[in-house]
Amino acid sequence: VANSRFALAVHALAYLAHHDPKPTTSEAVAKSINTNPVVVRRLFAQLNTAGLIATQPGVGGGATLTRSPKKISLGSVYAAVSETPAIALHRNRTNQRCPVGKNMTGILGDVSDTVDTAIEKSLSRTSVADVLTKTLSKN
Amino acid sequence: VANSRFALAVHALAYLAHHDPKPTTSEAVAKSINTNPVVVRRLFAQLNTAGLIATQPGVGGGATLTRSPKKISLGSVYAAVSETPAIALHRNRTNQRCPVGKNMTGILGDVSDTVDTAIEKSLSRTSVADVLTKTLSKN
Repeated sequence: VANSRFALAVHALAYLAHHDPKPTTSEAVAKSINTNPVVVRRLFAQLNTAGLIATQPGVGGGATLTRSPKKISLGSVYAAVSETPAIALHRNRTNQRCPVGKNMTGILGDVSDTVDTAIEKSLSRTSVADVLTKTLSKN
Repeated sequence: VANSRFALAVHALAYLAHHDPKPTTSEAVAKSINTNPVVVRRLFAQLNTAGLIATQPGVGGGATLTRSPKKISLGSVYAAVSETPAIALHRNRTNQRCPVGKNMTGILGDVSDTVDTAIEKSLSRTSVADVLTKTLSKN
């Protein structure tokens, strides 16, 4: 993950879980993260598309989780917001006359897929509820 | 991994393995990758520091592997060249008066460490020799 979107998403979902089932505004989440509400609204849109939250516009509206925070694994959060593969490939077209370079991009793509699978698997063991419990237990 | 250094390193090491035990110049590797030799020299310096290659300056010099390509796992390559954690954290200082935000950075740091461990573990199953074999078998 090249950017911090995953970290922001976990924070936002833990915040929603803490206030569950009350709807939470992007302003409230932004205040907890200490960022701009616009960033959170963009994140909400992505999490909404992934089916992890529902958003309700207008006064008294906001975002709510679509299922129990115990049932939202960090793996599904990662799948929802990560856009780039974990292992960036070099963009150069490798030398097609070199026996080593010729097929390297495909091989590295396979390695990258393996890593992405490992990441999602390791993250699937932790839920948003776990994150919230751990955070609150440190207070 | 935010940048493509890992992919470049695997490519370079597979190239060295292919020419093992003859020393390989940064120019030759750069030609295979289709990049600038300066990029490869910087990479060589890092791999040298990590003890994965030895470099010999001057005419007839170049880089050689310090051990059998079977004994160089992609996990050790990843450990050698990755600088940023796999999961980027948000840089904002989270709201210290918010019960959810207060300790979130530490919790997300733990998640990031777990992911890094999972990545290295999944990569430890593949060696530079495996990558070379796969690449050549596609020719």
